[in-house]
Amino acid sequence: MSFDRLIERIVQTQNPSVVGLDPKLEYVPDFIIKKKVKKYGKTLKAASKAILEFNKCIIDEIHDICPAIKPQAAYYEMYGYEGVKTLYKTIQYAKEKGMFVMTDGKRNDIGATMEAYATAHLGLTDVCGEEISAFGADALTVNGYLGTDGIAPLLEKCKAYDKGIFVLVKTSNKSSGELQDLKIGKKTVYATMGELCEGWGEDYMGKYGYSCVGAVVGATYPEQLAEMRKALPHTFFLVPGYGAQGGGAEGVAKGFDENGLGAIVNSSRGVMCAYKKEECDEHDFAKAARREVIRMKEDIISYLPKISLD
Amino acid sequence: MSFDRLIERIVQTQNPSVVGLDPKLEYVPDFIIKKKVKKYGKTLKAASKAILEFNKCIIDEIHDICPAIKPQAAYYEMYGYEGVKTLYKTIQYAKEKGMFVMTDGKRNDIGATMEAYATAHLGLTDVCGEEISAFGADALTVNGYLGTDGIAPLLEKCKAYDKGIFVLVKTSNKSSGELQDLKIGKKTVYATMGELCEGWGEDYMGKYGYSCVGAVVGATYPEQLAEMRKALPHTFFLVPGYGAQGGGAEGVAKGFDENGLGAIVNSSRGVMCAYKKEECDEHDFAKAARREVIRMKEDIISYLPKISLD
Repeated sequence: MSFDRLIERIVQTQNPSVVGLDPKLEYVPDFIIKKKVKKYGKTLKAASKAILEFNKCIIDEIHDICPAIKPQAAYYEMYGYEGVKTLYKTIQYAKEKGMFVMTDGKRNDIGATMEAYATAHLGLTDVCGEEISAFGADALTVNGYLGTDGIAPLLEKCKAYDKGIFVLVKTSNKSSGELQDLKIGKKTVYATMGELCEGWGEDYMGKYGYSCVGAVVGATYPEQLAEMRKALPHTFFLVPGYGAQGGGAEGVAKGFDENGLGAIVNSSRGVMCAYKKEECDEHDFAKAARREVIRMKEDIISYLPKISLD
Repeated sequence: MSFDRLIERIVQTQNPSVVGLDPKLEYVPDFIIKKKVKKYGKTLKAASKAILEFNKCIIDEIHDICPAIKPQAAYYEMYGYEGVKTLYKTIQYAKEKGMFVMTDGKRNDIGATMEAYATAHLGLTDVCGEEISAFGADALTVNGYLGTDGIAPLLEKCKAYDKGIFVLVKTSNKSSGELQDLKIGKKTVYATMGELCEGWGEDYMGKYGYSCVGAVVGATYPEQLAEMRKALPHTFFLVPGYGAQGGGAEGVAKGFDENGLGAIVNSSRGVMCAYKKEECDEHDFAKAARREVIRMKEDIISYLPKISLD
């Protein structure tokens, strides 16, 4: 199952973090935007080409020290089908460089429709007998509100193509408790969803003790992260909310197991906009991103046991 | 708010149903596929061009008798960025013909990311001062699992651009009860979500008594449809699951108010594949779709009071 590949990349880089590529145009340095606008005008195409160049430069600088990227679909859809083409090209580029790619789409639907999403993002699309990869990510974030009918089609693709999913369990935002913290009997909604994840993953175990069904648990709720780590021993965590949203390294450490594994922490703006924070020359944006990836890695692993497969 | 425009279209056509354009390539007649494969090979582009032609022919035949279409994003993403281009062109074409377009994307995220989705599907994208419509639907289906942080950015767009959203409340699939039917105190998860919808819509009321926050409630659960109709007087319902999934017209009638309004019923495969069911010449597929739209409309309104604004 797919998280084995991710886990191996984490051990190899000794880095349990992922860079979120959520590139609003305002994050892209002016010199790139100007070049594309000159060529394509003030269009969605120009924006999409600028974002692709930005992403590629960052991937070039981080692929050897960071195991994965997490492009957020929303920021590509915002630039229309040209933006979605940039999403595709970003995924392909990162994979060519050996990175593990998690598309953050939080997709959800049922039956044949969920199968279409699973095919789109993790599988192969049939066109008159030709099998073609439409987006080709290694993992996809999904929303489990619809129950097993929304998850089963994904599990088939995970098995067939060595992929994984991350189901929203406890999200990092302030109002996540409105539904997720409510009690179903003695158990919260998020704990109930977490338990469903363990069940969905049961027959899809990888060789390092984690199934192909992961969970999203926010860095902004360290107590719940600790609670879920204990309750869901076979569920790999994607932990958003570090940095810009307020989650700290000491808190996110609670999402890890005794081998320093079991979780991967995301940072998006912190890395993409490192050059703005550093106030360095904007041409230096990708190197600034690399510096931030290293800083973040050191910060996180300082609270963890040595990352190892034993 | 946007459902006013939808309600007016429903009254004008006396038809409270929407055609789901969820076009797998296998639904498209061979003569269209062959033409595109001849030109573009067995590629995602050929598939996407075939689907666009299929959609346009159906829209040509139904736009005068059907108020709305509901393209399902998954089936377009399945064909990669070329498929997503077809989604965009389908939306534009239907709108030119005066139809109300609901993109079924079940999108969900938080804060700035949800704002990006809202911008993508309902708003305008800024490119260096130019404001461009990336997809331009009239409404979007969304998943409320993340709470208010995931809904608030949509409400701003609904207000600014006269749009609407449909939040998943009780979905039509068999396993929808795994989470949605569980009890939070005395109330189910779906009823809790429904109550959130009424709250979210409170300050966004249209002139016909419904807010811009609608709810998805499945035709396969008529009792819950009746329960929700009573509990959520200001929430307009999108009702999937009629026909292929097993929901009948007598059941879906429970989702409507005393003016024959308050809900719109979706059929996808039933309409798109009507020519297969009729076993007519495949060149006649769009006319067969029209016949099915009329049959469905008559079926549904036979259980409703006269549709009127008074």
